[in-house]
Amino acid sequence: MKIGILGSGQLGWMMILEGRKLENEYYVLDRKNNGPASKISDGYYSLDQYREFVDKCDLVTYEFEHVDEKALQYAEDQGKLRPGLFSVELKRDRINEKEYLRKNGFPLADYRIAESFEEAREHTKEFERSVIKSATGGYDGKGQIFVRRGDEITDTGNGRYVVEEFVDFSAEASVIASRNENGDFRAHVPSFNLNQSGILIYNVAPFEDYGMTEMTRRIMDKLNYIGVMGVEYYIKDGKPIINEVAPRVHNTGHHTLHGSSISQFEQHIRAISGLPIPTPDLFTASGILNIIGTPIGREQLEKILKLDKTRYYWYGKDGVRRKRKVGHINITGISSDEIRQRIKDLMEIVYRGSLDSFL
Amino acid sequence: MKIGILGSGQLGWMMILEGRKLENEYYVLDRKNNGPASKISDGYYSLDQYREFVDKCDLVTYEFEHVDEKALQYAEDQGKLRPGLFSVELKRDRINEKEYLRKNGFPLADYRIAESFEEAREHTKEFERSVIKSATGGYDGKGQIFVRRGDEITDTGNGRYVVEEFVDFSAEASVIASRNENGDFRAHVPSFNLNQSGILIYNVAPFEDYGMTEMTRRIMDKLNYIGVMGVEYYIKDGKPIINEVAPRVHNTGHHTLHGSSISQFEQHIRAISGLPIPTPDLFTASGILNIIGTPIGREQLEKILKLDKTRYYWYGKDGVRRKRKVGHINITGISSDEIRQRIKDLMEIVYRGSLDSFL
Repeated sequence: MKIGILGSGQLGWMMILEGRKLENEYYVLDRKNNGPASKISDGYYSLDQYREFVDKCDLVTYEFEHVDEKALQYAEDQGKLRPGLFSVELKRDRINEKEYLRKNGFPLADYRIAESFEEAREHTKEFERSVIKSATGGYDGKGQIFVRRGDEITDTGNGRYVVEEFVDFSAEASVIASRNENGDFRAHVPSFNLNQSGILIYNVAPFEDYGMTEMTRRIMDKLNYIGVMGVEYYIKDGKPIINEVAPRVHNTGHHTLHGSSISQFEQHIRAISGLPIPTPDLFTASGILNIIGTPIGREQLEKILKLDKTRYYWYGKDGVRRKRKVGHINITGISSDEIRQRIKDLMEIVYRGSLDSFL
Repeated sequence: MKIGILGSGQLGWMMILEGRKLENEYYVLDRKNNGPASKISDGYYSLDQYREFVDKCDLVTYEFEHVDEKALQYAEDQGKLRPGLFSVELKRDRINEKEYLRKNGFPLADYRIAESFEEAREHTKEFERSVIKSATGGYDGKGQIFVRRGDEITDTGNGRYVVEEFVDFSAEASVIASRNENGDFRAHVPSFNLNQSGILIYNVAPFEDYGMTEMTRRIMDKLNYIGVMGVEYYIKDGKPIINEVAPRVHNTGHHTLHGSSISQFEQHIRAISGLPIPTPDLFTASGILNIIGTPIGREQLEKILKLDKTRYYWYGKDGVRRKRKVGHINITGISSDEIRQRIKDLMEIVYRGSLDSFL
């Protein structure tokens, strides 16, 4: 089967690496031809070749929601897009995402919709603490401003916004799950996630469920979703509140590459191509530490690779810059506590004790 | 780092898939440009381009011992071959292998060297049961004849032979281990292997050690070996007898792709490129079933992929033929017994109850 991937970042790269075993060919469409996934694909297509790309492929998926709209639309029109256009369109506009989830009865933080920054500023006065989020284009903390009532806020420009009440959570967590065209649903066990400045720093599985898996199933059923989805939750007072829905493989699912009976990437490729999806089994506690905004020198690399039950992924991007995810490290171990301790040690090696300067 | 691989079969293919994360580029040299590894490499070189290939690469390894001799020699001359030429030359001639191991005090089945087939035939009379093995070119049961004293034996041509006393073993087993230039030695736990007609059908780890790991260490130390080695043993009366030494990643190590903290393939790439090699940890019982000489139809594929804790690898070779390994299936589970039972079930699906017709 010929599978097209919109976007050529690390998520597409891992889809191809994990999906090679399944007799498929993988083609990539992106602005530039030097993304990690392009380099290991069976063929690269530029944005203006989107029709040729879709026509060549038996089905098309995306590794990122901010990909070329014409390509998405054309793939949908040809009946080849998995997950479907509705799921990705929902994600491309936070307002749509929020309204859809609220309308369907899913728990969300209280929020207001603002048609201008001025309006957003006004709404922040309604909450003790809030977050102004751009309706479009935001990921990895981009386009987010944390506000305390009374703060001076600099206008960040035009656009529509969501003003969300800050959730004083006890933990952030996520569920990575898959669903195929038969409606089969399979979930990896939840992970605990540590985000900073809106970017995932590390995560650890297993984590308590708090009803997240069932909620994820309801979202996916409602969307008649096909593929892997990542749903991020806040846990507050022992209950899950949906933070974000990602209609794709997700950074908090990278731990499934090791210690798990199947990775989110293989599960995604199976689900979209109509193959059976097994029930994931976590053999051992498993987590990752993201490598963000920093190169890894030879000495650091040797220190990392010396560690048992530790796997290093370098994405081979065309450069390292602040906030950019350039790799990650998988850690497996006996318990979540062991993983946390080892992540702490790894953070010393990777960030030399000062994560903030890389975010 | 630019790593060259001599040979383009499934072993090279898995080296590249598992080694992508480590910032390397991978180049392949082989007779034909349609091998599994060629298709996912960063560049293919034909046999006559061996100098260009070696010059391009920082180091050169091999996925198979029967590769182009000129390329091996030139890589060795340039100081780039890992493991070194001595180890592969040893393997390319069974007589050298046997004599080297015997000379160094390792336990082997009793054997005789024959300079002609006629001489080999004579030697079979010395044993109740024996195996005539071609000195060169033999793998996967090629060039082997099983003989009972008094059997009529058809002459198979010219060449040198080893006549080996048949070992009435209680089990066949192997150790996959790695060693780097610092002399660090790391072993995966042994596996139980089931061979038929000289080809691995399935294997299961963990298996009892019987002193095999320590013996493997001594072999690798003696050779000052760099990389992954697979050593196959017969177990007889609770003691290991060396069957064969493979100076490369090995079919009985494919189970390390799942259920293990590191795969033999990543371990090999790390060892040859001077990176630290961790101690492998087996999280769960793990085994494989080889897919030999048979295509897998859609119905079979669906049955296989429906199974939990089961991963399917199709190598994408240029055709399926008798005795040819075209894929394998990884199985993880609670115990070796569970793995064996599930392999039995899988054999029904893959071979429809008649393995013999595919060998």
